[in-house]
Formats: sequence, structure tokens, C-alpha cells
Amino acid sequence: MTAVTLRVIGIGPGGPRQITLEAVDAIAETDVFLILDKGERTAELTAARRQMLDAHAAPGHAVVAVADPPRDRNPADYEAEVRRWHAARVDAIDAALVEHLPDGGNAAILVWGDPALYDSTLRITDALAARRGDLTVEVIPGVTSVSALTAAHGIVAHGIGEPMFTTTGRRLSDTPAGADLNQFVMLDSSLAFRETAAPDDLVHWGAYVGTEHQILVSGRVGDVTDEIVARRAEARERLGWIMDVYLLQKRR
Amino acid sequence: MTAVTLRVIGIGPGGPRQITLEAVDAIAETDVFLILDKGERTAELTAARRQMLDAHAAPGHAVVAVADPPRDRNPADYEAEVRRWHAARVDAIDAALVEHLPDGGNAAILVWGDPALYDSTLRITDALAARRGDLTVEVIPGVTSVSALTAAHGIVAHGIGEPMFTTTGRRLSDTPAGADLNQFVMLDSSLAFRETAAPDDLVHWGAYVGTEHQILVSGRVGDVTDEIVARRAEARERLGWIMDVYLLQKRR
Ligand SMILES: C[S@@+](CC[C@H](N)C(=O)[O-])C[C@H]1O[C@@H](n2cnc3c(N)ncnc32)[C@H](O)[C@@H]1O
Ligand SMILES: C[S@@+](CC[C@H](N)C(=O)[O-])C[C@H]1O[C@@H](n2cnc3c(N)ncnc32)[C@H](O)[C@@H]1O
Repeated sequence: MTAVTLRVIGIGPGGPRQITLEAVDAIAETDVFLILDKGERTAELTAARRQMLDAHAAPGHAVVAVADPPRDRNPADYEAEVRRWHAARVDAIDAALVEHLPDGGNAAILVWGDPALYDSTLRITDALAARRGDLTVEVIPGVTSVSALTAAHGIVAHGIGEPMFTTTGRRLSDTPAGADLNQFVMLDSSLAFRETAAPDDLVHWGAYVGTEHQILVSGRVGDVTDEIVARRAEARERLGWIMDVYLLQKRR
Repeated sequence: MTAVTLRVIGIGPGGPRQITLEAVDAIAETDVFLILDKGERTAELTAARRQMLDAHAAPGHAVVAVADPPRDRNPADYEAEVRRWHAARVDAIDAALVEHLPDGGNAAILVWGDPALYDSTLRITDALAARRGDLTVEVIPGVTSVSALTAAHGIVAHGIGEPMFTTTGRRLSDTPAGADLNQFVMLDSSLAFRETAAPDDLVHWGAYVGTEHQILVSGRVGDVTDEIVARRAEARERLGWIMDVYLLQKRR
């Protein structure tokens, strides 16, 4: 009987010191790290993870790259394609655990930011746990890119007692009326706020937040949108990838 | 000319290992810690902070308790009273810095979870920075109680690509239609979901999450509400205080 503990470890938004002590402890206890390769952006993100392992993993740990199944980025049915792709990833991870932890032990997957926020790893590990009775999944929370953004700008996310909404660029235009007082927007490759925000709304934008490449722009939408567009394009061109997030606040 | 750096440090949701390395570094560099006493819940929260300082602060640091001005908890005008109370706290902190860092240096305020989320410290330090030209405020993000909750339950906060709403017990019944697919509810002393949720919705509830006292209950609202009410009342009675948060998910 083998017993595998698979930890899904939030490592924070990118800075090497933005990881928690709990995550450091978990990394030190891990026998096998599974690296799920996400295709694009690979080099930078894998480098950051490798830096975490160099700093915190115990001698003798293994790092196993689990090749990512191919994915259709512009499918007719978006959610069906995501589901199919997730199933293929489960198969690949299962095979990697069987090969590298035949007698059980501790495996881990390092996840950007916090595992609960726009990350598919837990859906995959849940599917795996449903299949393998000997697998326990544990989750270690991390600092989100949203917290890194507000900290970098030195701001609170909302007016006193106000609610906030967190969404994606894809869905920004669907935000219900009245829910848009304070909105965090992630996974937005087209700066969708240009279609939804009023000139007097505020935008607090950040790219590569918490890392050495961090860029921040903040102000009235009418004043700073052009600057955000330009700096985003310039950085993306220069570094070859981009990761950005922003907080939109309705004019009061 | 004195120069004071005042760091607002997120220390995570309560577990002593849920603090980041960046926060540990900042604690080690701090000369004077300001403890803003919040009246109720004091003993437990102050104990947790003191534990962080014992573990990470440098020899010779000072801990200064800034007495909290009295506050009306049931004012006729809630926001006006909050503003008045914040101004009184700014005066008190200013006086403490003048007294304890007359020649400048590093001060810090430790904040539960992340400083951007339902915490008034940054509003106070901003007001202070507006008054004192020699003061720089820096913010260090922390793991939120929301991330601790989802990690403890081992869940993602939302269905694939879905948005989420974060609100307070006080405002839960004001959530706009359509924004209630995934809702995090904080600062809720009356379990307000009992008035808003349908029996088939899901609730993932947690108290003292990440600490030794952690309690988790999860399930259909119709099935688990009584258990949450009972366990919340029992724990609050036994420990003398409570801190709880939950995720509501609309039935799909
Ligand atoms: C797949 S999601 C993962 C989010 C992550 N789990 C978290 O907790 O932040 C990726 C999105 O997160 C945001 N993001 C993550 N890290 C970031 C960073 N360091 N700076 C800016 N945005 C970041 C961007 O919006 C990006 O499109
Ligand atoms: C004043 S707010 C501060 C929130 C904090 N800044 C954060 O990032 O989580 C206090 C509320 O946070 C939630 N909370 C904070 N820590 C918690 C914990 N360890 N377990 C459960 N809820 C917690 C509760 O809803 C509580 O009413």
C-alpha cells in the first residue's frame, strides 16, 4: 500500500520573498516536484519556480516535468475544451506519480499566487484523488497577485465597508450593474477596461507585480489609459511575456 | 531632518507559519512596532502578534501599544463615526512616533491577513503621511483569510473562469443580482447568509482558519446551516471571541 501526499503550494505572485514559511516548510518536505508546463510564458515562470526550489528544497528531491497535453486556444466550445485538456493532464500526472513515487511519499505542485484564484491545478488534483484512493491533496494558501497589486500601490481595495468584484478580462463587460464599485481584473490580454470604464473612474494597474520587472500606473482612466497601453506593449515586447492585473474603481 | 519608514505588514490569517519571508525580513528590520489595540478580541490577536515578534524581531526592538480611542459601535451615522475614530487614531500614532523615533528609523504595524482587505490601517497611515512629509509608508501583502478558507477546504473559489464577489455580513443582502455566483462574506456577526441563500446553494464556512482552533463546515445550505450556527455559538462561548468567513456558491 503506497500513500502519496500531493501538496498544492501557493508560492505568491512572483517575488522570491513573497512565499510563506508554511510553503517553505512544505517545499523542504517534498520528495518529488511536478512541474506542469504551461507552454507559453514557460521560461520565466519555470525560472522563478526553480529559484524557489534551489533556495528551499531538501537535497535529493526530484523535479519531474509533466509534459502538457496540447490545447486548442480558440475552441468553438471553450469550457468543453478546458475539460478535455484537464482530463489529459490528470492522466499525465498520474503516470508521473506512479513512476517517481512507486512506494509513496510527498509530491508537490507549485502554483503562482494562491491556488484558489484562476488556477486549474486543484481541479486536476481533485480528479486524480477521485481516481487514486491512496492520494491525499493538501493546499497551502499564497499571497495573490491582487494583494501584491494593492500593496505595491499602497492602497486599500475598497471604500470603508464596500464590497468588491473579481473577474477576468473576458467577462469584464458582463459585470452586473452595481457590482462594479471596486473590480479586480485578471487574465486580461486586451485591457478590456477601455470598453467598460468611464474617464473619471480610477485604474490602478500593475505588471510583473512583486518581481524585479514591476511596473505600476495609477490614475483617472481618462488620463492614464494611453500610458498603460504603451507601457504594457513596450514591456511585453522587451521581455517576451506579460502578467498584469488591475483594480478599477468607480468614480464616487 | 528625521526620516521614518512606516511599514504596514500583512502577517496572514493567523497561523504563525502563514507569514511571508518578506514580512519576516521587514519585522527583523523594524525598530518600533506600533500595536493598535482594537479593544475586543485583544488578548488573542495580541498574543499572535507577540508570537510573530518573538520569532522574528531583532534584539533591541521596541513594542509600543497605542491606546485605541473610544468608538461608538452603534452610531446613528456609521461612516461619520468611523472617520472620526480614524482621525483620533492618527493623532495617537503621530504622538507615538514622535516619542519613540525622534531621530527617524523604521516603524511597523502588523496587520491581520492582507492590509488591503477590510482593514483601516492604511487609511490611518495615509492620513499620517499627508501630515508628516518625512514619513514613507510601505505595504507588505499577506495571505488573506479568504485564501486560508479556500485552502483549508481544498477548493477553488469559483467555477472555470467565473467572477467572484467579496462582501460583508452587513451588506450581503445588497449584492446585485447576478453577482452572487461565488461570494466571500467577512465581518459577519449574524451569519447573514441565512436570510439570502437558497437551501441548494453551497456554503464553505471556516472559523479561526489557519490557527490551532480552526473549525470547518461545508455543504448544502439546507443541510449544514444548523451545524454552523451551533458550532459558531459553541466556539465563541468557549474561546470568548470568534473570527469566521465563508464562501457561498449558487447552486448551478
Ligand atoms: C492564471 S491566473 C493565476 C492567478 C494566481 N493564482 C493568483 O493568485 O494571483 C494569472 C493571472 O494572474 C495575474 N497575475 C499573476 N501574477 C501576477 C503578477 N506578478 N503581476 C501582475 N499580475 C499577475 C494576471 O492577471 C494573470 O493574467
Ligand atoms: C477586519 S477584517 C480583516 C481581514 C484581513 N485583513 C484579511 O485579509 O483576511 C476581519 C474579518 O476577517 C475574517 N478573518 C480574518 N482572519 C480570519 C481567520 N483566521 N479565520 C476566519 N476568518 C478570518 C473574518 O471574516 C473577520 O470578521
